[in-house]
Amino acid sequence: MALIVQKYGGTSVGSVERIHAVAEKVKSWHDRGHQVVVVVSAMSGETNRLIGLAKEVNPDPSPREMDVLLSTGEQVTIALLAMALHRLGVDARSYTGGQVHIRTDSAHSKARIMDIDGTRVRADLDAGRVVVVAGFQGVDESGAITTLGRGGSDTTAVAMAAALKADECQIYTDVDGVYTTDPRVEPKARRLDRITFEEMLEMASSGSKVLQIRSVEFAGKYNVPLRVLSSFEEGEGTLITLEEEENVEQAKISGIAFSRDEAKLTIRGVPDHPGVAYQILGPIGEANIEVDMIVQNIGKDGTTDFTFTVHRNELNRALEILRKTADELGAREVEADDKIVKIALVGVGMRSHAGIASTMFKALADERINIQMISTSEIKVSVIVEEKYLELAVRTLHEAFHLDQAA
Amino acid sequence: MALIVQKYGGTSVGSVERIHAVAEKVKSWHDRGHQVVVVVSAMSGETNRLIGLAKEVNPDPSPREMDVLLSTGEQVTIALLAMALHRLGVDARSYTGGQVHIRTDSAHSKARIMDIDGTRVRADLDAGRVVVVAGFQGVDESGAITTLGRGGSDTTAVAMAAALKADECQIYTDVDGVYTTDPRVEPKARRLDRITFEEMLEMASSGSKVLQIRSVEFAGKYNVPLRVLSSFEEGEGTLITLEEEENVEQAKISGIAFSRDEAKLTIRGVPDHPGVAYQILGPIGEANIEVDMIVQNIGKDGTTDFTFTVHRNELNRALEILRKTADELGAREVEADDKIVKIALVGVGMRSHAGIASTMFKALADERINIQMISTSEIKVSVIVEEKYLELAVRTLHEAFHLDQAA
Repeated sequence: MALIVQKYGGTSVGSVERIHAVAEKVKSWHDRGHQVVVVVSAMSGETNRLIGLAKEVNPDPSPREMDVLLSTGEQVTIALLAMALHRLGVDARSYTGGQVHIRTDSAHSKARIMDIDGTRVRADLDAGRVVVVAGFQGVDESGAITTLGRGGSDTTAVAMAAALKADECQIYTDVDGVYTTDPRVEPKARRLDRITFEEMLEMASSGSKVLQIRSVEFAGKYNVPLRVLSSFEEGEGTLITLEEEENVEQAKISGIAFSRDEAKLTIRGVPDHPGVAYQILGPIGEANIEVDMIVQNIGKDGTTDFTFTVHRNELNRALEILRKTADELGAREVEADDKIVKIALVGVGMRSHAGIASTMFKALADERINIQMISTSEIKVSVIVEEKYLELAVRTLHEAFHLDQAA
Repeated sequence: MALIVQKYGGTSVGSVERIHAVAEKVKSWHDRGHQVVVVVSAMSGETNRLIGLAKEVNPDPSPREMDVLLSTGEQVTIALLAMALHRLGVDARSYTGGQVHIRTDSAHSKARIMDIDGTRVRADLDAGRVVVVAGFQGVDESGAITTLGRGGSDTTAVAMAAALKADECQIYTDVDGVYTTDPRVEPKARRLDRITFEEMLEMASSGSKVLQIRSVEFAGKYNVPLRVLSSFEEGEGTLITLEEEENVEQAKISGIAFSRDEAKLTIRGVPDHPGVAYQILGPIGEANIEVDMIVQNIGKDGTTDFTFTVHRNELNRALEILRKTADELGAREVEADDKIVKIALVGVGMRSHAGIASTMFKALADERINIQMISTSEIKVSVIVEEKYLELAVRTLHEAFHLDQAA
């Protein structure tokens, strides 16, 4: 008998039929003798409907009241799922975030969980009940309703699993696990049986959208085994755990992530002197624009070229700031390019294996794909290439590292 | 400066436009220096939408989960109204029933308020804020969400007014006050400036649907001045207060209520003996059918005729039970009639004035309207007449007691 926390997202509970299907799935675990806590999101579409209502009432709604409004979405789902479980003869009780004391800070719309009191949930589980908890929400010290921001239900599930010392936290989604890369780009992409928290984080931060970064961080921190699986199909999904020594030797590379959300900015011919990087990036940071990759080349003439990437949505704002900076610094020119993509090779095996990067660069060169920028971390190599090469580059690397074959 | 609790029902907050109108009204009171607490219902249609969802999931949903579900309706409204107030520059905060500690018993879907802790509301009012509270809901001792049943928002408002010792509790509705009778039946019906709690109760229990009976009882018990007024038009509405001596002498009759929901059952030729009334009505009560008026006539032959009224919806069920009873008691026959109405004359002045009833009976007799049953209480005379005479009888009595003229 295990204690399992399951999380079903908005699509998984998007209709009465889907809610019945989730209830059946929950029942099947409960029938096998497991203790089950279910965390649910708002029915798909509901959050947007509520946001629409709010915007009609006030174009700039207060975050506090927005949280009061949006938290009703999950509250509807928990009640309906409990009713669906009752119909199957399963004893179940629903709770809002506040009712199970999911204590957060007061940062409305992006609150962080501080603490969960598992007493009530444990009592229900011990009484043989399934416990249904509203994801995405909590209460602050004063009792005000808070939300964790979009995707926060994953975090609720992981935090609940950590608080209850659950054996596994299962995230049900519309894909059946984590893949070596996006199957829409590379049909040979293969579902991974296991991946480490670190790798999952690098995959997520490089564009793989299976899980919210914060929930993976949380799971890693509290060592909660996390499993991603499909709410629509049967299957084992992908288990995300701490690194296991014996596997490291074999699996050099776990997957290839990519992101189309990147744009590149270059400032050329900046008179070089200490502190120039800060002078260029300072104003960008002050404008709350996040910078991803950074490359600086020193030229021969005492000037420097400086290139960095930002989210594509921020390109225009960043460009405007950079032009001002260029004037102030007496730079020669400023260039912007949003026809680029980032491709990242991720794997804990990189740590102990030299030559991963060079294999990557050679494979791309063989296909005459020009690499514009390179950035490396302990378990990741990222490159920026022209957007039109995305599919070719991903397939080439998938092949080069034999990712279609299980390690 | 007064402390005012206002309640707006589902129609009053039924759309974004209506919510803006309510915000304007609230602001106008706040601008005049009053402290304002606003209690709101779910937007009209929302509760039925949620009930529909629940029934789709489970034809027999648990009352506990139903309350979790339905309470989201008011939660949406409080957030939207607070946002609308912010837009007008009014500082406002919304609270669910649980957040302001509206403590109830655990009778889900028909809970009763035990206690309200006004501390937080008072603190907000003292800080110059408008407080918006979700009607219809509370929490029980264990923290489970409860609802007070349909119309419970009136009760929330009155209870809140009592807890805060408010100067007035204003119930905004789609009529502009309490009338001497239904203006759709008697165009000369006149809005009353004042009426006593007792009279209002008798009016309500006799079919006048302006206010929920429970909220009037509550207001009377805690002596909370209650004002009914229109959320769509300007006006003073009707103030419901304790009886005031000086007014009693003048206003003999406050109004005429009527109900089309009645049906009449008669059992004839029952061998008369002590306890026969109990033998007839006992099985009806056990079936949870409420009996309104009762009349018993003793015949010459040692048998008795016994007549009583029930809600029209219960007629068939009551008839079935009565037929069984008739067999057991050896009664001669059973009759049912749902083509009747109840008309009630209400007024505290009756206490000190003889002759009200006889004026009533004479006026009806002059119009050849036959009275089938009569029942009297301290401040009410009710009669049952044929349904087709409803309009004629109401207008006749309105005229006979000069109700179109202010006392």
